[in-house]
Amino acid sequence: MPDTAAYLSKNMREDVLVSLKTGFWIRGKLESFDRHLNLILGDAEELIVDKGERKSIRLGKRVLVRGDMVVAISMPKEVKE
Amino acid sequence: MPDTAAYLSKNMREDVLVSLKTGFWIRGKLESFDRHLNLILGDAEELIVDKGERKSIRLGKRVLVRGDMVVAISMPKEVKE
Amino acid sequence: MPDTAAYLSKNMREDVLVSLKTGFWIRGKLESFDRHLNLILGDAEELIVDKGERKSIRLGKRVLVRGDMVVAISMPKEVKE
Amino acid sequence: MPDTAAYLSKNMREDVLVSLKTGFWIRGKLESFDRHLNLILGDAEELIVDKGERKSIRLGKRVLVRGDMVVAISMPKEVKE
Amino acid sequence: MPDTAAYLSKNMREDVLVSLKTGFWIRGKLESFDRHLNLILGDAEELIVDKGERKSIRLGKRVLVRGDMVVAISMPKEVKE
Amino acid sequence: MPDTAAYLSKNMREDVLVSLKTGFWIRGKLESFDRHLNLILGDAEELIVDKGERKSIRLGKRVLVRGDMVVAISMPKEVKE
Amino acid sequence: MPDTAAYLSKNMREDVLVSLKTGFWIRGKLESFDRHLNLILGDAEELIVDKGERKSIRLGKRVLVRGDMVVAISMPKEVKE
Repeated sequence: MPDTAAYLSKNMREDVLVSLKTGFWIRGKLESFDRHLNLILGDAEELIVDKGERKSIRLGKRVLVRGDMVVAISMPKEVKE
Repeated sequence: MPDTAAYLSKNMREDVLVSLKTGFWIRGKLESFDRHLNLILGDAEELIVDKGERKSIRLGKRVLVRGDMVVAISMPKEVKE
Repeated sequence: MPDTAAYLSKNMREDVLVSLKTGFWIRGKLESFDRHLNLILGDAEELIVDKGERKSIRLGKRVLVRGDMVVAISMPKEVKE
Repeated sequence: MPDTAAYLSKNMREDVLVSLKTGFWIRGKLESFDRHLNLILGDAEELIVDKGERKSIRLGKRVLVRGDMVVAISMPKEVKE
Repeated sequence: MPDTAAYLSKNMREDVLVSLKTGFWIRGKLESFDRHLNLILGDAEELIVDKGERKSIRLGKRVLVRGDMVVAISMPKEVKE
Repeated sequence: MPDTAAYLSKNMREDVLVSLKTGFWIRGKLESFDRHLNLILGDAEELIVDKGERKSIRLGKRVLVRGDMVVAISMPKEVKE
Repeated sequence: MPDTAAYLSKNMREDVLVSLKTGFWIRGKLESFDRHLNLILGDAEELIVDKGERKSIRLGKRVLVRGDMVVAISMPKEVKE
């Protein structure tokens, strides 16, 4: 998983947006990852759409996300709202 | 899974909030874990939302949660209600 | 799976409550387990909620539950109804 | 899978009730099994509940059930209807 | 998978009924299988129930069915309609 | 996977009909496959039924289909519409 | 996975259309892939159909898509709208 690791390493301590198999999104600072794509995100929040309105729920200082549940990881910084 | 183990080790005997593939959440004291993310939680309770109201169901002195069912593990302590 | 095995060994011949991926619960005496968390439960019964009412269905003297289907195993003894 | 094999060996040529991930149940005489819990059942029938009524559909002299689809295997003999 | 292979070998060139995880059934002549239970069926047809009526859709001279999708394989010959 | 490979090799550059776990069907010329049943199909189109009407959507000159998503592969040539 | 790698290598820096198990489609420039079909796509956007209308949501400069979630990868360039 060379390029994947390279991609994630370049994004360390950056805000990333993780889409999960459950249909939810989690945004947080990428603090660490391993070869199974288990992720540790700092100052993480869950992004939900509730009756058409975007809301975020704080998940705490650090969250461990299991790699098996990850669909995609993107860099929200370049995403223009 | 170096960082994941380091993260969990730092949280031993702390309250953690585990989100499961079933859509439920379990809160309990992290007593042990293994490399498959099988977790043993102490004084565990299941958190459900029933008709918009938050409820908790006690699950007993100790609960073993299979790692394969874990979506994310977070530290509720820093989560401000 | 050291701690998991230790946890289960301590609970041998005790009543355990097993939550399954199918959404059902099975209660029975823990008679044996293996490293895949395949379980053999004695005097097992399935716990269901039927129109808000708790019911149990006897499953026979012994039931083998496949580990892959297990979500969580808890000790009902300490669960105060 | 020592105990699991021991448990199944004791039940050879006995009627067993197999609950599947599909939500169906199959009843038949346990003729053989392997370490993946692939089962061969003799004189098997599928048990369904149709508008509250229990029905059984004959599946033929022998049926091979894939282990990956098994949720639980129990001994109906001791199950009092 | 000794017995499973023995069972399937005995049924070579016989009509078998394969139930799939998708909920469909495929009937065809067992032409070959491998240890993953990948099957090749000859003159295969898909059996569906459409508004209570049994229908069959021809699938062609030969169909390869992925073993991972198989729930059960039975011998329709002995199934009395 | 000897016979499966033999079966697919005989069908190289033939039109095949691939049923997917998503419930969709893709038809295309079999250009290559590997032991995981990853397939490359040429001039592929997706077959859907929209309000009872059969429609096809062109997917481009070449499509790679992941083997893990394949339910069955059949030879439409012998399927009489 | 020889041909699959060859196919993807030929499409480096080309626009590809990736269909995911979640039912969504992501379009982007193929920047890298590995043997698990983990993909890195540049200038990626998610394609959705909202009340019959095709919309796209920008996902940022680079997106990592987990191979396990991929259903199919096609070359939209040859797809005539």
